[in-house]
Amino acid sequence: MKLLAISGSLRKESLNTSLLNAAKSVAGDKVTWDTAAIDDIPLYNQDIDGEQKPASVDRLKKQIEAADALVIATPEYNYSIPGGLKNAIDWASRPAYKSVLAHKKTLILSASMSPMGGVRAQGQLKQILAGTLTPVFPAPEFAVATAQNKFTNGELTDTDTQQKLQRLVNDFLAWV
Amino acid sequence: MKLLAISGSLRKESLNTSLLNAAKSVAGDKVTWDTAAIDDIPLYNQDIDGEQKPASVDRLKKQIEAADALVIATPEYNYSIPGGLKNAIDWASRPAYKSVLAHKKTLILSASMSPMGGVRAQGQLKQILAGTLTPVFPAPEFAVATAQNKFTNGELTDTDTQQKLQRLVNDFLAWV
Repeated sequence: MKLLAISGSLRKESLNTSLLNAAKSVAGDKVTWDTAAIDDIPLYNQDIDGEQKPASVDRLKKQIEAADALVIATPEYNYSIPGGLKNAIDWASRPAYKSVLAHKKTLILSASMSPMGGVRAQGQLKQILAGTLTPVFPAPEFAVATAQNKFTNGELTDTDTQQKLQRLVNDFLAWV
Repeated sequence: MKLLAISGSLRKESLNTSLLNAAKSVAGDKVTWDTAAIDDIPLYNQDIDGEQKPASVDRLKKQIEAADALVIATPEYNYSIPGGLKNAIDWASRPAYKSVLAHKKTLILSASMSPMGGVRAQGQLKQILAGTLTPVFPAPEFAVATAQNKFTNGELTDTDTQQKLQRLVNDFLAWV
């Protein structure tokens, strides 16, 4: 099975990128992973959208198309997902009649320094993915709160969170 | 009174930019307008955010600070606002302790070719602006549906929509 990891955060030492790495670890050998880069995708503008897409958009669309399923980890900015992640989703969803996001099974994760763990961003992301016809794995929201205390040098070191992530990823793979 | 117009669409012949222009027309002489550009704002990345902001972010923040109120017109992409608009809001909201968006009164408009007129995007934007502590003018959602039939060469030509916009803008100015 081939999964595509998409981090909503662009910073180098991102907790969400670290959370994706933890998901990769617990998924084990039966899964191969690809990683999306969304930092070089231009802001969506219909005037530059046509048969010919920017190269960074083509790359993302091909990665999504080639994946059996997606795993998105998102921070929460102002009760929602980052503009950069929304921008990548908007590009990937076009044109709608052959959107690579349609019917692509997806797992949502979030990590945040706040005690809410990013659940509001997950709520908005679910609505957005309803718009793109992307089925989201139905599970209680996996939101790593006060995440700065659960990672050490980019490694998930909180054993309770590790065990829950292991179960969630197993359940997701079985669902896919 | 000084208002800042922010269009969520980057395309040149945007219906939302046209809707902002119509709002400017009906507002009359008692108001001066500034217009925000959000197309040259880089994707938010905490690694490049600090005391020194990108020049395009500084410009936007100064425009918001100098305005008595904001008027945002947004298209709807995948049941939400465009990534570019969210990106501009995220930058403008930082640092949170001196956010220029906090307590800045705002009017939300939308125009869309769909029969829903962008109301789902307005719903998500209100939640985002709750996150930025930005008071949104409490009014029934002003959503121009099937907008391609209500504008001619960038001018709002639907008289019913014009009259409603006139009333809304008057009420908003009185509230500000």
